[in-house]
Amino acid sequence: MAPVATKDLIQENGLSTSGKVVSKRRLSEANTESSAAANLSGEHDLVLKTFRLLIADLCQQFKGGHPGGAIGMAAIGVVLWKYIMVYDPNTPDFFNRDRFVLSNGHTCLFQYTFLHLVGYKSYTMDQLKSYHSTRIDAMCPGHPEIELEGVEVTTGPLGQGVANSVGLAMASKHLAAQYNRPLHDVVSNHIWCMIGDACLQEGVALEAISLAGHLRLDNLTIIYDNNQITCDGSVDLTNSEDVNAKMRACGWEVFDIEDGCFDIEGISNALRTARSRSDKSTFINVHTIIGLGSAVAGDALSHGVAFGDKDVANMKRNAGFDPCEHFVVPDSVRKFFSTAATNGTRATEDWQQRVAAYAEAHPALATEFEQRRKGELVGDWESLIPNSFPEKPTATRASSGLVFNPIAKDVKSFMVGTADLSPSVNMIWKGKEDFQHPNVRTQCGINGTFSGRYIHYGVREHAMAAVSNGIAAYSPGTIVPVTSSFFMFYLYAAPAVRMGALQHLQVIHVATHDSIGMGEDGPTHQPLELATLYRAMPNLLYIRPGDSEETAGAWIVAINAKHCPSIISTSRHALRQFSPATDRKKVRYGAYVIKEVADADLTILGVGAELAMAVDAATTLEEKHSLRVRVVSFPCHRLFEKQSREYQRQTLRRLEGIPAVVVEPYVALGWERYADAAVCMSTDRFGQSLPGPKAYEYFGFSHDSIVRKLLGYLKDRKDGSAVQGEFVELV
Amino acid sequence: MAPVATKDLIQENGLSTSGKVVSKRRLSEANTESSAAANLSGEHDLVLKTFRLLIADLCQQFKGGHPGGAIGMAAIGVVLWKYIMVYDPNTPDFFNRDRFVLSNGHTCLFQYTFLHLVGYKSYTMDQLKSYHSTRIDAMCPGHPEIELEGVEVTTGPLGQGVANSVGLAMASKHLAAQYNRPLHDVVSNHIWCMIGDACLQEGVALEAISLAGHLRLDNLTIIYDNNQITCDGSVDLTNSEDVNAKMRACGWEVFDIEDGCFDIEGISNALRTARSRSDKSTFINVHTIIGLGSAVAGDALSHGVAFGDKDVANMKRNAGFDPCEHFVVPDSVRKFFSTAATNGTRATEDWQQRVAAYAEAHPALATEFEQRRKGELVGDWESLIPNSFPEKPTATRASSGLVFNPIAKDVKSFMVGTADLSPSVNMIWKGKEDFQHPNVRTQCGINGTFSGRYIHYGVREHAMAAVSNGIAAYSPGTIVPVTSSFFMFYLYAAPAVRMGALQHLQVIHVATHDSIGMGEDGPTHQPLELATLYRAMPNLLYIRPGDSEETAGAWIVAINAKHCPSIISTSRHALRQFSPATDRKKVRYGAYVIKEVADADLTILGVGAELAMAVDAATTLEEKHSLRVRVVSFPCHRLFEKQSREYQRQTLRRLEGIPAVVVEPYVALGWERYADAAVCMSTDRFGQSLPGPKAYEYFGFSHDSIVRKLLGYLKDRKDGSAVQGEFVELV
Repeated sequence: MAPVATKDLIQENGLSTSGKVVSKRRLSEANTESSAAANLSGEHDLVLKTFRLLIADLCQQFKGGHPGGAIGMAAIGVVLWKYIMVYDPNTPDFFNRDRFVLSNGHTCLFQYTFLHLVGYKSYTMDQLKSYHSTRIDAMCPGHPEIELEGVEVTTGPLGQGVANSVGLAMASKHLAAQYNRPLHDVVSNHIWCMIGDACLQEGVALEAISLAGHLRLDNLTIIYDNNQITCDGSVDLTNSEDVNAKMRACGWEVFDIEDGCFDIEGISNALRTARSRSDKSTFINVHTIIGLGSAVAGDALSHGVAFGDKDVANMKRNAGFDPCEHFVVPDSVRKFFSTAATNGTRATEDWQQRVAAYAEAHPALATEFEQRRKGELVGDWESLIPNSFPEKPTATRASSGLVFNPIAKDVKSFMVGTADLSPSVNMIWKGKEDFQHPNVRTQCGINGTFSGRYIHYGVREHAMAAVSNGIAAYSPGTIVPVTSSFFMFYLYAAPAVRMGALQHLQVIHVATHDSIGMGEDGPTHQPLELATLYRAMPNLLYIRPGDSEETAGAWIVAINAKHCPSIISTSRHALRQFSPATDRKKVRYGAYVIKEVADADLTILGVGAELAMAVDAATTLEEKHSLRVRVVSFPCHRLFEKQSREYQRQTLRRLEGIPAVVVEPYVALGWERYADAAVCMSTDRFGQSLPGPKAYEYFGFSHDSIVRKLLGYLKDRKDGSAVQGEFVELV
Repeated sequence: MAPVATKDLIQENGLSTSGKVVSKRRLSEANTESSAAANLSGEHDLVLKTFRLLIADLCQQFKGGHPGGAIGMAAIGVVLWKYIMVYDPNTPDFFNRDRFVLSNGHTCLFQYTFLHLVGYKSYTMDQLKSYHSTRIDAMCPGHPEIELEGVEVTTGPLGQGVANSVGLAMASKHLAAQYNRPLHDVVSNHIWCMIGDACLQEGVALEAISLAGHLRLDNLTIIYDNNQITCDGSVDLTNSEDVNAKMRACGWEVFDIEDGCFDIEGISNALRTARSRSDKSTFINVHTIIGLGSAVAGDALSHGVAFGDKDVANMKRNAGFDPCEHFVVPDSVRKFFSTAATNGTRATEDWQQRVAAYAEAHPALATEFEQRRKGELVGDWESLIPNSFPEKPTATRASSGLVFNPIAKDVKSFMVGTADLSPSVNMIWKGKEDFQHPNVRTQCGINGTFSGRYIHYGVREHAMAAVSNGIAAYSPGTIVPVTSSFFMFYLYAAPAVRMGALQHLQVIHVATHDSIGMGEDGPTHQPLELATLYRAMPNLLYIRPGDSEETAGAWIVAINAKHCPSIISTSRHALRQFSPATDRKKVRYGAYVIKEVADADLTILGVGAELAMAVDAATTLEEKHSLRVRVVSFPCHRLFEKQSREYQRQTLRRLEGIPAVVVEPYVALGWERYADAAVCMSTDRFGQSLPGPKAYEYFGFSHDSIVRKLLGYLKDRKDGSAVQGEFVELV
């Protein structure tokens, strides 16, 4: 695509590029709707008033919620849903629709109310009134949720939406590069992200903004509701930066809208320019007044509290509405928004025609494109996994490469990224191309292409996970994002990993260096308690495979888990291979017996990088101490939880009085459900910077020490100092 | 203090302020040490060569580690430790020392080696060689650790050090504002933070940079080792921003050093200017070459791998050193650094004299200052806690204010901050002053003072916690930082909370809205699994008090816990009061019996916001079902873990065959150690946007539902379908 002559476009649209933050129109002046409305057409004036009063009424009926922001953003919404965005209220999931993300999700009424006005079926007036209500079937929860019509991602925790939008824009760029052909643009949508002051303070947003600037995602526009108010009051309590200069330094185009509460034309020009912009993401700094028209306009008090009956009545009087009537939408306002449906139908039909023409011109591609849109993986991916693996000791991070890289190479659905740990994570397949802007040629000689499927996220773990959520949400299953880093750094990414789980998004996180065995990097890098978080997190699979065979099983589970994220947790160091005792097909049970004996004295639960320790301890206890010892490999709590109680009992056999002891150099919390005791790390301290084998030894994970601890525990059980039902840490 | 005329200073020191990123001297040219060295005095030339070869040798002996960055930063280190920093190798904890933070902690050899050369006792050559060794007593772990001489904070997870430095600078500014008097500057140190390319990509650093710019911390300098290399290769793979422009937009002064490998004079001028700068933090962009002199100079290969014997030998030959000799430090180099000790002695003596003069002029202040330096709280804080609380239902977030605000008001050691949730967290005491730059007057009319103790962190939860670690690390106990936000957002802050725990820093985190009872904000804000993380995290106290009395107990525990962080987890909604059944003095046991009966059928474990549910269920089971039910209040796992087994048994009485069931709307993971079953949330899903009481009801926490579940469990126990030793979720 030839670069658009931006300067011309800007001048044509009459935009300011001076970039200085224009001082906000003084409150006293702007707050008088009548005077400001003089610049508006009567039609727009009525639409804005109707919208703002509806928000005030909706919060007032609940006596809570977040009215101020939604009211301040009214004009932006009118422009977006009336003049700019491509969408179809009758086909909310139309593939080539623009994506709208409300990163300042607490202003959700803004979105719900516009979706109502333009005719999305779910958002009846009755449903709008369910905002913050006790109705279980409410479509209007306190923050937008991905399950709802017209909502692309769940937002709420600030900053996430910005990163999601970057992911949505990347997904669109990528699919366009893969499937568009000359004269056949089957993917051509734009991503619009609404943010407030707070989103610009959150690190995850700042990381994502920097990445988007680097990638020059010209299909991404951030619209900044600059009302200079957060919960604590004026933003200048905490932030004095020149935000426009900062965005420009990050490689973004920046426009200012001074009178963002009323300047429909200005906002419209800016958004139109943003859409036709090439080569840069656009940041539109719209100066607004929170809670405009209310007695607390411009004040933090309008942020998260309803205005009160009296104030709402006053607002209505000032706007020429009847203070006794509520939830009023004049017919002319309904008519104003009625174009949405017709435009929507035209847009979907136009796109269907494009796809039909594409199918004639490029039948094979079109078939693949359709399959991808349905969320199907193209090709028999499972057959690409090696049937067997080298018998020599192999780090599971290497096993992971052996399993997945052939799949990544052949199955286009996977986009693989890393937070600057390419040399450690083993995610590079032969011939991989980087996802970069086509004009990029890096110092290390990499040429850019948006059809590339390897993403260098930089040292931005949190954004990596949040961007991946956006990629996955673009069209579930069409792209399956894979991230990679050290396991410990998934604590940085945790808020976004959680949001992926909450949204049922398939994102696969590959986390290496997952135990104290990673060694010298020391306590800051040794993840003692992080697995506990991920074992506790709903709708997420945390899997620690013990060898290459189990790594294959972990990948099979993760790829088949279409509605949740997975973490495949691997070792830095080489591990012994146990196949055929280990079995890829059994990983999906979460835990399974790899060594069974009758009349057992003990079950050892072996996990991931330390599976060999369990097996070796069992051998010694049998050979030297004449004990009968079972071994269970236990790669995943959540998968085991999902098995029948019968399977669980057969696997653990604790009810038969056989004590179970887990061996894992993490804190024990969470193992109490499956074990009576744990050879584990204490909760008194963190790890230690020592080479891996020495770190194991130092913390009591040498073979002798483990055997001694197990014998000690069995003895304590025998003499009654340890009793069933009381968990013991063998540290 | 009068503002220094910056322009003059800059010109005087011959610095460029053009700010453009100067293109790096081409590798081929710079890499030839001899040619570049022409600009150096012979003395500096030898010092740099010695240092770089020492680094190469140290990595080579281990055949690993991170040589490249340390080598590239050699000239910066020479300037810092020889010419700029105020420190005393013989009194490493001299109070008014400058603080140096190596945020790119993987280059730790840089710091250890300079500490060795300037004469810190711990860093013998023998100890230097322990880098990455198997020695348990090694002083040279893979990342700098706070326990070591000359190390101010533990670093490693990238970006943390930047935020820690902001905290150190805030602590210094604050103590200076509180204790310095005209002619008596007893606190006057500077904070130097070394960073690499990666730190500038991490959100936590970006948040902290923005905050520091707002606060205009002129005692803070970031020195950017701009070698344009990270693990994946060239930084332009992931980052294209104009970093200088970005830093300026954030309110920082920026200088460039083009030839950062050799330009000792230029670096020296820049750092000197930074120290004498007023009104802004300074960012010094030093262009360096990673692994200078090695065969992999300028390449990512020099980042995390030793160079190999051959290359190291070549480096020595090129530098005029004997390739067969290792760890060589010529006498003249030792002599060069010998000034450090004499300068250090002079600095400590000078400061001691200042303190002595101060004590004469301001005896009361000096006494207090000394007490503070020792880490003692001034005054009888415990007596400030109310003896009793209102009997009406009170949210524990409000109780927390009742308990702590009188302490915060009177005991100067506490600095209290919030991530933009002042209206929710109840942390404002009467007459509180904000911590702001003295020249600030915000739009909401707040005047600035660095003696203020209320910190508006903005919506920057991660930085809030990491900055607090820096404040705490400045001089442990001198300032006790308190943070506050919604509990869910402590997932954003988790990496920094962990670093606080790892460093034994006393930081008190006050987390409100800690259960599904927080209601409408919905699943993104309802923390189902986060408590599990914090219950698992070593050296941290996660405390959920059940009423005002227990909130008092939680604060007493947290304030007395000098060597670990605490999280006080409170409710949004009003809770019934149970005193005298609840007892502040018993919170320190973690769990205690609040209702005892003989021959009990059941123990209910009640926790925090849901304690009343446990108590009410017990009442109904007794009154309507003739059961005998004990109730245990269980505010803190970790504290209970630390009790004797005897106390634990007496409290739980599970060994007597009395089943224990916990009632908590979190996932159950972690309760298995103390309970047989849990009325809990499932791990299949997240929460729901509903008003608090309705959310409780929806998830089975209505009174009737709880009673039904408990009865069901007791029945299952009786008929054998539930058995002791098998944990059951009653969802």
